[in-house]
Amino acid sequence: MTATTDLRKTVERFWATAEARHWDAFAETLAEDVVYTLPQTREKISGRDRFVQFYKEYPGDWHLRIERLVAEPGHVVSWIHAAVGLEEMYAISFFTFTGDGLINSITDFWPEPYEPPAGREHLSERY
Amino acid sequence: MTATTDLRKTVERFWATAEARHWDAFAETLAEDVVYTLPQTREKISGRDRFVQFYKEYPGDWHLRIERLVAEPGHVVSWIHAAVGLEEMYAISFFTFTGDGLINSITDFWPEPYEPPAGREHLSERY
Repeated sequence: MTATTDLRKTVERFWATAEARHWDAFAETLAEDVVYTLPQTREKISGRDRFVQFYKEYPGDWHLRIERLVAEPGHVVSWIHAAVGLEEMYAISFFTFTGDGLINSITDFWPEPYEPPAGREHLSERY
Repeated sequence: MTATTDLRKTVERFWATAEARHWDAFAETLAEDVVYTLPQTREKISGRDRFVQFYKEYPGDWHLRIERLVAEPGHVVSWIHAAVGLEEMYAISFFTFTGDGLINSITDFWPEPYEPPAGREHLSERY
C-alpha cells in the first residue's frame, strides 16, 4: 500500500503535468486499465491510452490549478479551478489507486453556475 | 485537534440526522458561526440557526445517502446521493472543523446532468 502523502503527490503531478501538456509524465501517473467516469453525462473512458488522448484532444486553451486536496489511504479528492478562455469553473475529482500507487479510477464532476431558487433570500446572501 | 475518525463520524451524523429530520442532533454537529457556501449560485448562509432553518425549510421530500467519504486531519469530503421525488442527483461537500471537532464550514457542489459535447464518441462509451 502506497503512503497517503505519495498518493497526494501523484494527484498533484497529474494536474501539473496536464497543465504543462507533458503527456508522457501525465501517463506515468496512470494505471494501464484506468477508468475515467463522468456521472453527469454518463460517459466512461477505459484505458490509459484513450484517457491520455481524451486530454490531448480536449479543445480550448484550458488551464487548471488545485484549490484543495483531501487524501486518506487509497483515496484522494481534488477540487480544482479550471479556466477555458473567459469561462471559469470548478471540478471535483475522486481518485483511487492500485496497490503501487498508480491512479486506477477517476470520477469527475463539473458543477455549473445556476440562479438560486426563490424563497431563501431571508437566509442567504450573494457574494 | 480532533481525530480524523471523529471528524468522519461527525459528517456521517450530519447526513444521518438531516435525513432523519432530527434537527437538534443535526445542530449539535455545527459550530455556532458555521458558514455554508454554494459556489454555483454564489450564496452564503452564515450561522448555525440560519443554516438549520435553511435545511428545515428546504422544499420537497428529499432523501440523502452517503456514497463516499474521504477524511484527513481537519478536512472531510462527502459525495452523497440525493433524491427529491423522482429526481436524483449527487452532491459533493467539503467540510472543515473547529479545534474541538464541530463543523465550521461547508462548501457544497450540486452538479447537474448534461449532454456530452460532440467529438469524443471515439473515446467514450455511455452507461
